[in-house]
Amino acid sequence: MLHLVIAEAELEPVPKDIANHPAVVNHARRRGKRPEETILDATYHHAAIKKLPDGERRGRPDIVHVCLLNALESIANREGLLRVYVHTRNDEVIYVKPETRIPRNYNRFVGLMESLFKNRAVPRDLKLLRLEEKSLGELVDEIKPDGVFVMHEDGELMKPPEFGRTLSRFQNPLVVVGGFPHGDFRGKIPGRKVSLYREPLMAWTVVNEIIINFEHWSL
Amino acid sequence: MLHLVIAEAELEPVPKDIANHPAVVNHARRRGKRPEETILDATYHHAAIKKLPDGERRGRPDIVHVCLLNALESIANREGLLRVYVHTRNDEVIYVKPETRIPRNYNRFVGLMESLFKNRAVPRDLKLLRLEEKSLGELVDEIKPDGVFVMHEDGELMKPPEFGRTLSRFQNPLVVVGGFPHGDFRGKIPGRKVSLYREPLMAWTVVNEIIINFEHWSL
Repeated sequence: MLHLVIAEAELEPVPKDIANHPAVVNHARRRGKRPEETILDATYHHAAIKKLPDGERRGRPDIVHVCLLNALESIANREGLLRVYVHTRNDEVIYVKPETRIPRNYNRFVGLMESLFKNRAVPRDLKLLRLEEKSLGELVDEIKPDGVFVMHEDGELMKPPEFGRTLSRFQNPLVVVGGFPHGDFRGKIPGRKVSLYREPLMAWTVVNEIIINFEHWSL
Repeated sequence: MLHLVIAEAELEPVPKDIANHPAVVNHARRRGKRPEETILDATYHHAAIKKLPDGERRGRPDIVHVCLLNALESIANREGLLRVYVHTRNDEVIYVKPETRIPRNYNRFVGLMESLFKNRAVPRDLKLLRLEEKSLGELVDEIKPDGVFVMHEDGELMKPPEFGRTLSRFQNPLVVVGGFPHGDFRGKIPGRKVSLYREPLMAWTVVNEIIINFEHWSL
């Protein structure tokens, strides 16, 4: 089983510090929600987000959305070989059941994330997505992987098929992919650093390379 | 060079027949556009779309969006090994320059498609995306591939790595992937039918499998 963690994802409700900013208030009103209940989104909160620390990378639910669409619809997931987790910048972990059908429409996905942050699980009965306060370290300890890899621009360069083969030699490998648009992890991430290409790649590209090259040696 | 065609994609401006439907008019007004200038979207036009032929599959710009994000950010595209085209249900072809950076945000992507259908090329100077009236057959004739493959539920079952290897034996293979949510191609599609899995897969899953398994044998 491959455990894939989208880590330090830029997914969070609007922080209190900017909840009164006109860009945030107007966007929330148009959506019929209170500002603190909406998800921070760089596209709509651009003017407000600049005032926050790390403002140039925050508010990217779209990255999580595309990573989840790719991971959950992959052959590896259909074959029961994959578990996906989202760890956020605020040390929350979203557990995703493999049978989850993520909304294809972005705005619906954001609406689902708003419910999730409010109710801690969605839907209330099936709990396909469940959110807990948890650090990345605690999540790794809980999963008890027999190998931990961190996808990193400065990591050891491995061709994707070679990395897929490496993963397939473990029973329960865990791979960490940064869920942010650029730059480095903010926290210390334990594990073997690996890079799949000589230039930075988008998070969803790395997710696809990992899963499909893992499938190659595991199916 | 691998030529990837997202074919019969459910991407189109709102058809005249439903341009006066309240669901369409209200959505257009909220976006400050005339109804015929907006892109048909099953999420917002659900009530209107049911009245159209093939209504249960139309209005899916999200499928094109995710396929393009994955294809254009792939390692194969960075290495200059890929060309991507979108062919629509109304026999238009969108030519995508490999250096195009597709908007990450879905609503911005839809706005870009609205400009594209209106102006036939975006941005006006660089023409990264260009739209022409053209059938899939005409596009294939123009590309002059030395092998044509159609991803199809009823095709010959090939493991993805085996298909990647097959593709790598051609100089200019062309692969057709349906850009619709389910069901069959409406038109006759020439080429060798191939299936990568025993169950239907999402269009973007197929795109990822094709590109990454092609990379495996081509990089």
